[in-house]
Amino acid sequence: MEFDLINQYFAPLGLAKSAEQAALEGSDIGIGDDGAVLTIPPDQQLVVVTDTLVSGVHFPEDTAAYDIAWKALAVNLSDLAAMAATPFAYSLGLSLPKICATDAQWMADFARGFADLVSSTGLPIALVGGDTTRSDVLTLTVSAKGLVRHGQALLRSGAQSGDLIVVSGVLGEGALGLQLALQRLNPSQMAVLNLQQKQFALNCLNRPQPQLRLGMVLSGLASSAIDISDGLLQDLGHLVNSSSRKQRLLNPQAKDLGARIQLEQLPLSAGMQKLFAESEHWPWPLSGGDDYQLCFTLPADALGPLQDLAASVNTRVTVIGEITDSAEITVFHKNKRVSIDRHGFQHF
Amino acid sequence: MEFDLINQYFAPLGLAKSAEQAALEGSDIGIGDDGAVLTIPPDQQLVVVTDTLVSGVHFPEDTAAYDIAWKALAVNLSDLAAMAATPFAYSLGLSLPKICATDAQWMADFARGFADLVSSTGLPIALVGGDTTRSDVLTLTVSAKGLVRHGQALLRSGAQSGDLIVVSGVLGEGALGLQLALQRLNPSQMAVLNLQQKQFALNCLNRPQPQLRLGMVLSGLASSAIDISDGLLQDLGHLVNSSSRKQRLLNPQAKDLGARIQLEQLPLSAGMQKLFAESEHWPWPLSGGDDYQLCFTLPADALGPLQDLAASVNTRVTVIGEITDSAEITVFHKNKRVSIDRHGFQHF
Repeated sequence: MEFDLINQYFAPLGLAKSAEQAALEGSDIGIGDDGAVLTIPPDQQLVVVTDTLVSGVHFPEDTAAYDIAWKALAVNLSDLAAMAATPFAYSLGLSLPKICATDAQWMADFARGFADLVSSTGLPIALVGGDTTRSDVLTLTVSAKGLVRHGQALLRSGAQSGDLIVVSGVLGEGALGLQLALQRLNPSQMAVLNLQQKQFALNCLNRPQPQLRLGMVLSGLASSAIDISDGLLQDLGHLVNSSSRKQRLLNPQAKDLGARIQLEQLPLSAGMQKLFAESEHWPWPLSGGDDYQLCFTLPADALGPLQDLAASVNTRVTVIGEITDSAEITVFHKNKRVSIDRHGFQHF
Repeated sequence: MEFDLINQYFAPLGLAKSAEQAALEGSDIGIGDDGAVLTIPPDQQLVVVTDTLVSGVHFPEDTAAYDIAWKALAVNLSDLAAMAATPFAYSLGLSLPKICATDAQWMADFARGFADLVSSTGLPIALVGGDTTRSDVLTLTVSAKGLVRHGQALLRSGAQSGDLIVVSGVLGEGALGLQLALQRLNPSQMAVLNLQQKQFALNCLNRPQPQLRLGMVLSGLASSAIDISDGLLQDLGHLVNSSSRKQRLLNPQAKDLGARIQLEQLPLSAGMQKLFAESEHWPWPLSGGDDYQLCFTLPADALGPLQDLAASVNTRVTVIGEITDSAEITVFHKNKRVSIDRHGFQHF
C-alpha cells in the first residue's frame, strides 16, 4: 500500500526532482530513497518540531480530510513561527484506517490540504519523506524542519520582569470553533453569531494560519515567544517558567517571574464580542486550545518598532499585560483582580 | 499528561543541557522549547528518515515496552545506516493507551529501550523533541536525523550491471522470530531449534541492531544500498528499479536492470540451517520482513577492500548474486532457476 499512496498522492508534494535526478545532479533528495538528504546553509541552524494528531482526540472524527492535513502541518509550522524559523521541509508518519486509504477522494483531499497550506505561506516547503501504515485510528505525526540564522532562534526563556506581553490575532476562536463543530452552542449563542462569524471560528479551528511572517520579524526584537496551542494561560505559564529557570541560572537568588494579564485588553473577534455582550465566557480566550497565535514578550521601548514591523506583515498585535516578578500569573479586569474558573470569572 | 511524561521519562534521553542552559551558552537546544535548535557542521548534509510502528500491525500487541521502543528507533537507524549517515538525534510522536501511560514500569521500560539501543551504538544520539498523546492504539512515529559528508550519502540508485550484490548478517531471522513470537512453529520445527537459536531469532525480531558501522565504511565503496525491512526480494527490487531510473536519465536507451540471486549463497543462521535440513522455507530469507540488514552493490574489484572493511567493523558480509541487465529479479539454486512461492520453491 505504502508505495502506491506515496507515488500517487504524496510525490507531488515533494521536491520537484526525483531521487534519481537529484542523485545525478548532486542536489537535495526528498522522497524515493531510504531517507531525505538535505543541505543546510552554513550560516543557518536547523529547527525541528513534531506534533501528533489523533482522530477523536485532536479533531472531531468527522473532520474533513482536507482540514486534517492542513491542521497537522499548520500546528507544526506554528511551532516554527514561534521560534522565528523559516520552514522548508516536513515528514509525515500517517496511520490510516482502510476506509480512508482506499477512498481516492479522501486521499486527494488530504494531499490538497497540505498543498494549499504550503501555497498560502508563499514558502517552498517540501514533503521529504515519511511512512504510511494501516491502523484503526487515524493518527498523524508531522515533523517539520525550519532554518534560522545561527543564534537567532526565538526562545521561551528570554522574558524579563517589566517586559510587555503581546499576542497576535484574536483569541478564543479555536475553542469557539470547536463548540460550533460539536454543536454545543445554545440557541441564544447561535442566534448572536452571523454566518461569517461562525465560518471564521470554524476556519480558526480547522485551518489555522501559522504566524510565520510575524515570527520572522520578531527575531531580535522579542525577548521570548511561544505559540498558543494549549490556551493562553497554560502557554504563557511555560514561557514564564522557562524564563524564570534561565534567570535563576544567571542568579540563583533571582525572583521567580510571573505575569499580569488585563482581561479587557484581550483581542476578540467581532463574533466573540457579541457573545460576550450576552454572557462573558473567558475560558475560551484564556484557556481554549487551538488558537495558534503567538504570545511573546518585549521591552516596553520596543513597542514602536513592533507596531511598524507587525504592520509590515499585516498582522494584528495587542499588548495584553506584562511580565512581573510575582511568581504567579494574575488576571485583572480593569483594576480588579479576578479568578477564572470553568464558568467564567469572579472578582476576588 | 504530556509534560509529566516528558520530564520524568524522556528528559534523560535528551541533550545533557536544559533548554535554558543551552540558551545561555548558545549551544544546541533539545527538549524544552517549541522545537529543537540544532547546528549542522558546514561540511555535512542532514539525512532525515521516518518510520511509523502500530501495535498489532508492526509488532504483536503483547510485545514488551522495552522492545517496542528499541525497535521503533532501530528501524530508523537502519535507514540511516543504509545511507551511510551517522545518527545524532531523533524525535518521537507517541500515541499511548491510558493503560501504558499510567503504568510507571511500562514507561520506564519504554524509555530504557531507547537508552539501551543508543548506548549499544556507541554514538551520542539525543531525543530532541516530540509529542505524546492519548490514543486507543499504541502508535509511534520516530523521525531520526543523521549527518553525512556532502555528496557522500549512499543511495539506492547507483547499481550497475555486473555489480555484486552483498548482504550483511544473516537473513530470515526476523520472520522466524515473528513465527516464534506468534507461536506458529509446528512441534517438529520447535524441536529442531535450541533455546539459544530461538532467542537469537526473537532478538532479531524485537531488538534489531542497525548496521551503522558497516554503512559508514561502505560510503565511497558501495555503488548502492538499501536496508532490508520488507524482505530481500522487495527491497532489492526498489534498489534495482531506482538504479534503472537513474541509468535511463543518463541514457534513454539503457536496458532495465535486473538481479540474479543464488539461493545457496544466502547467509543463514545455524538455527535456520537446521530448519532447512528438515524442510526448506525460502520465503523467510527471501521475503520475510524485519531483517534490518543492509543489501548493497559494488563492482567486483571492490570485493577485497570490502572484506577488509567489513572485518574492521566486525560484520559478516556475503555475496549473494549480481546485478544484470535482464529487467527482472531471478533466483537460482545452483544452476537451476527456481520460482518462489509462499510454500517454498520449485524448479522451473
